[in-house]
This record gives sequence, structure tokens and C-alpha cells, in this order.
Amino acid sequence: MKKRMEMLKNLSVENGSKMVLLVMDGLGGLPDARGKTELEAARSPNLDALAESSELGFLRMVDVGITPGSGPGHLSLFGYDPYEYLVGRGILEACGVGAKVSSGDVCSRGNFCTCDGGIITDRRAGRIPTEQSAVIVEKLAAEIKEIEDVRIKLYPGMEHRFVVIFSGDGLNEHVHDADPQKDGAPMLWAAASAQEGQRMAEIANKFIKRVQEVLKDEKLANSCLLRGFSSAPNIPNLRELYAIKAAAIASYPMYRGLASLVGMEVEDAGKTLEELFDSVKRFWDKHDYFYIHVKYTDSRGEDGKFDEKVKVIEQVDALLPRITSLNPDVLVITGDHSTPAVMKGHSWHDVPFMLTSDKCRFGLHKTFGENECRFGTIGHIEGYMLMGLMLAHAGRLNKYGA
Amino acid sequence: MKKRMEMLKNLSVENGSKMVLLVMDGLGGLPDARGKTELEAARSPNLDALAESSELGFLRMVDVGITPGSGPGHLSLFGYDPYEYLVGRGILEACGVGAKVSSGDVCSRGNFCTCDGGIITDRRAGRIPTEQSAVIVEKLAAEIKEIEDVRIKLYPGMEHRFVVIFSGDGLNEHVHDADPQKDGAPMLWAAASAQEGQRMAEIANKFIKRVQEVLKDEKLANSCLLRGFSSAPNIPNLRELYAIKAAAIASYPMYRGLASLVGMEVEDAGKTLEELFDSVKRFWDKHDYFYIHVKYTDSRGEDGKFDEKVKVIEQVDALLPRITSLNPDVLVITGDHSTPAVMKGHSWHDVPFMLTSDKCRFGLHKTFGENECRFGTIGHIEGYMLMGLMLAHAGRLNKYGA
Repeated sequence: MKKRMEMLKNLSVENGSKMVLLVMDGLGGLPDARGKTELEAARSPNLDALAESSELGFLRMVDVGITPGSGPGHLSLFGYDPYEYLVGRGILEACGVGAKVSSGDVCSRGNFCTCDGGIITDRRAGRIPTEQSAVIVEKLAAEIKEIEDVRIKLYPGMEHRFVVIFSGDGLNEHVHDADPQKDGAPMLWAAASAQEGQRMAEIANKFIKRVQEVLKDEKLANSCLLRGFSSAPNIPNLRELYAIKAAAIASYPMYRGLASLVGMEVEDAGKTLEELFDSVKRFWDKHDYFYIHVKYTDSRGEDGKFDEKVKVIEQVDALLPRITSLNPDVLVITGDHSTPAVMKGHSWHDVPFMLTSDKCRFGLHKTFGENECRFGTIGHIEGYMLMGLMLAHAGRLNKYGA
Repeated sequence: MKKRMEMLKNLSVENGSKMVLLVMDGLGGLPDARGKTELEAARSPNLDALAESSELGFLRMVDVGITPGSGPGHLSLFGYDPYEYLVGRGILEACGVGAKVSSGDVCSRGNFCTCDGGIITDRRAGRIPTEQSAVIVEKLAAEIKEIEDVRIKLYPGMEHRFVVIFSGDGLNEHVHDADPQKDGAPMLWAAASAQEGQRMAEIANKFIKRVQEVLKDEKLANSCLLRGFSSAPNIPNLRELYAIKAAAIASYPMYRGLASLVGMEVEDAGKTLEELFDSVKRFWDKHDYFYIHVKYTDSRGEDGKFDEKVKVIEQVDALLPRITSLNPDVLVITGDHSTPAVMKGHSWHDVPFMLTSDKCRFGLHKTFGENECRFGTIGHIEGYMLMGLMLAHAGRLNKYGA
């Protein structure tokens, strides 16, 4: 464990305070031709009012110049050095379909395919529609609950895709894909890429054979491929680290999954932005730390829709009183990375953040934006340092040394 | 390899973009009695115009409070953590005389001396004039090409100084100087300072004996001393690291040598400042990354000539359009360390830098100087992080994690 994390763990105390981390995905931006970033262009009276009693700064989510994916960006926000804690693609895929992955589990992405006499005829089974694919997954789930003593859980995905979670002893991610990579080739079975992957490879192949048995009369797909075997990452739990009860209020499966990986309880976030914000109040008494995830700032940025991203920020601004009225002891508003609409994608630019508590050097700011953050008292810090700063402002960290 | 360097390597892609690193040696300064630094005092309309579309910040070249020599300063600018990658004095001396040093080579500084019956009578051979010394080096080079199977290369230096490069198997820098350190003392022969230096010590002593044979009738000097044995540093090559074709446009041998050590191709830089800047255009199609080195900002700073240093900056400013007209995708202007004229030497003060690309948070600055850099969006970063930031702005880094 990193020195800092170890120290925070040792200094942490419970005190019943409430912390809120409001993440507008991809919040950071770049100016368009009119000269302002999305956050600066937004009319956001509530954010601006909050800035007066807040400290500002920039988060360097992974490292200077590194563009974070959602996994590293979020892990950093949750206090984990993204160089040290990695989340594999298979795990993110599993998170994305809402699968619950525990330590020791191995997950794999699955493709339904068609197969004739050992030859893969279509690796995607004609991109079988999502609804029909879900029916097949349900049928398999009813039939295949275990292979030897390994428990199998199946989750439908988009079109021909699904996710398998293998839970049992002695499983390991060191397994080559069971996938010939092209149509017309013979089936390629799973094989250990290292000694310790042996058992997982055998179980995976037995699973595929069971799938073939169950689907032998199925017209749309009669076999499957398995790819991207990956273990649940060994991430220390937030509660054990800092003695906090953390909750995730997030509508999208991937973020719910990421939060779950670090030990947050995933609460019902509703479907709309309003419901998302109202959920915080619903679960307010139950937790100490609330991670709230707003997806659409990133989506509009990815689409290159500057004004639409501005609108999402304005919507969040309008809903902000639903959080501030709960009087959290610490409120942080930031993003997990930048997604400048002018770049139509994630970027490496440091992410503006605003921290509000009654222990701030307040009175310095009248607005929240990239330009203003240049003058923030906190300066540029690593993203993974934010958690400790929140704990400090919440009065949850003892003094270090006498 | 450091985690960051490893990550940059893994994320790097080629895309044909062009990057320019313009280094004004010792650029950073301190205000003189009139209250402005050299960079701030300079009339630099081109730099100022560029600032409007740029991001500013400070480079911490080695560490807070550490004054960098030219070696660490440049290695840092080229992306190497100067704590991890060291370049010995012998190597720098070799670079300084334009010697090419490859991995496995050992180089040593040489002094011509006079010697009588085993006693060193003058360690500097009367500070023999440079031209005459060069003639002697030429004579030796013609006579001594190999010692056993070790290839010998000789390079003349100033006055009585020269450089020897030993190339062969099993050589090592762990060798004590072959130098009694004072006149009138008996010759002190090279000796291994560790077991693995044994062979190098023997070769060095055989070399000196050959020198004595060749020079036995030479009046000015009849022997030599060898000092500062050092191996070529094991520095990963820029092309292998980041898939870039890098070129050095630098007039001074030491900087050409340093660039060559990290795998840059050293191009003809001409002799004047104008020729230096024009060289960039000449070689524009051939490379992706251009390191341009301007020496005189440092020289004038070392001399304590504030106004002269200002003038050099103004000359660079006037020549800047020769670079900007090439439309580099990324242009960085900075120094390798500070050389405040008021200190007449290198200093530890963070170095102002300006990065221009079309992915900047622009519109915030109207000038480039130390004071303005305080408000830059990039803040203070380690010097070795600059390379990754340039690659990011050049679109040469993939996203990290999904």
C-alpha cells in the first residue's frame, strides 16, 4: 500500500460527518472560439455562490499529459493511485453490464457465435438483437449454475455480447482468449498463458461445451467465444481504509460497478437527473460519503456539442440546492477527467475542482471555472490526493506526529 | 524504467505531427534593481503574441532548491528523471569535444604532461597551446588505434586537454585516475577501484605507455595523465521510447553530445543565431521533434550581463517567426535551468515555460515571463514531465485505461 494511503488509514477517525463528491463526468474543457470553456460559459449562479466559500484547484488525474479512461479517473477520485491500482478491460466490461465482481472472481467477455463441425462460421452470430440475446443468456443461466465447484453468473450485454463471472478457488486471469479471431477458422479453446491459469482455462472450456449442449437446437447461436479473462482487482476497501460508509448514486452500470469495486454501497439513483439528485436525500442518513455521478457532461463533450455540455452543467447547477440544503460537511465538485467538446474526447488537461467546507480559505472566488482555478489556494494536486483532503476538511484525520 | 516513462512508452503512437523544443540556455532569471527579470525586461512582441494562444507554467528541472548543471537540465527536458539518469563528468567532457560515445564505451579526460624518469614535472605541459596540442593528438591518433582489442579514439580539447574513448568488451568506469595530482610526484598509474574495473585500468596504463613511446622525441609533452573514467550512460533512446524521430539543432558540442546520447540525430546548426533558426526549416521534413539550443542567454547570465542577456532574448524573439511559420503542432519555449545575471551562475529557480498547440486553454496571457507563469494553467511540473505533455498536445498518446 502506498505510504500516503497507509498514513491516511492510520490517521482516520469516524465522526459522523457527511462528505459529498459530485462528479460531472468529463467536466474539464477547453475554450471554443468564443474564448470560454464549457464550465466558464455555463450560467451557474449556484456554483458561483458556492465558490465564494470554497477553495479551488486542479486535479491531475493520472499524470501530466496522460489522458485517463473512466476507470483510472474514478479510481483516482476515490483515493487510489492509478499507477498502482489498475482495473482490467474485462472487469470494466463486467461493471458496464452491472455484474458484481468479488475478489478472486475471474470475468470474461462472451460472444455468442455460430459453429459448424468445429468451425466458427460467424463470430457474432449475425449480431443477434439484444433482446433475443438476453433470452438466450437467461436460458443458459438457468441451465449452467456451476462447472465443478465454480459458480457461474451470466449477464446479458449489447447484441451478441454477454459477461461471465467465474467464482471459485484457484482461478486466475492468466488465460488466452477462447476465440480464433476470424470466421471460417476452427474453434480455438482457452489455454493457460501461465501455469496458474491452468484451472481457469479448463473451466472455461467446459463452460463453452456446456453452452454448446444447451444451445444445440438454438437457431440464432449454438456456441460462444470467451475473451479478456480478468481477475477482480485487489483494491482495499474504503470502509477498511478510512472507516467511512460510502454510497454511490450513479445511473450508469460502469460507474456503479467501479464504486462497488472499492466497497461503496450502490444505491438506487433513479433515471433522470432530478431523481439522481433526490436520491442523495433519500439515503442521507445511511452513509458518510456520497459519490454522485452525472454522465451527460462527458457524453455531450464526446459528441462535440459544446452548448449541450454547457446545458448539462446548468442543469446540475439548478439542482445543486438539493445537495447543499442537506448541509454536507464537505462538498467537492469536479470531474473524473476533461472531455473538451472541441476535442470530442477525453483529454489530459487537469480537471478544475471546488471544495467547500467551513474550514476553507474563503472569500477569494466569485466563480468556478478553469481560469479561476488557476488562482485557487490548493494549486495542482494529484487526483488520488483528493480523498485525504476531503477527510481532512471533514475532521476525520488525526494529527500526524506530536 | 520509471513508471511514467513506461506508461508514456506504452501509450505512444506515431502520427506525423511536429514538435519543437526551443531551449534558451539559462533562460530563467531574477529581477535586477529595476524590478524585472531578463525575460520580463526583454521587448519580445513575438513571444507575447504567442502567449495569447499558449499555456504557461514552471519547470522544476531537478528538484526544489537543486541547481542543475547542463547535463541534468537537458536530460530532464528530454523526458528523463535526472535522479535516475546521470551523465558523468567524463561523458560531458567527451560530449563537449564532440566525441561520440556508445553504450559500453568508457571515456576519460586526458592531460598532456611532461615527465622525467618517472616523475611528473608539469601536469599541464606548460598549458600547451590548443593548436599545437591538436597536432599531437593527431599524431597519437595515427599511431594508437587499438590496445589489445580495445579501439581507441582521441579528440583534442582546449590547451593541454584531450579526450580518449575506449571501446571494447569488459570495460568499466571503476578506475582511479592515473594522475598524481601534483607536480614533482612520481607517476600514479590507473588502478581498479572495484574488481570489474581491472581490465580498463590495464588498458589505460598500456595506453599511457604507448603515448610515452610515440611522444618520446616530442618537446612540448612526453606523456599524459588520464582522469574521470566514465561509462556511457545507459539511457533509453527517444525513438524506442516514443516512436519519434528527434533532431538536435545546436551549435555547441556539449549539447550536440547530450542530444546524441538520447538518440537524437545531430544536424548542422550553422554558426550564427540566424543560421541556427534557419536550420530548423532545412531539416523540417526529416524529423518529428526538434530540439533547438540557444547558448548565449546562459553565457551572458554567467557573465552577470543583465542587459546583454535581455538582448539575446530579443534576438531570439525576432527570429521566432522562422519557427512559427513552419506551423509546428507543438512549440515549447523554455530553458534548461535559470542563470540569473544577478547571480552570475546557474540557479535552482524554477524555469518559466510556454507551450503552444491548438489544444491549449488559450486567451489567458498577454506576455511570457516569470511573473506571468505564476498564473499559468499548468502550474509547476517536474522538468521530465514536459516530454509527455508535448506528446499529449501532439496527439501522440493513447488514452490510459478504458
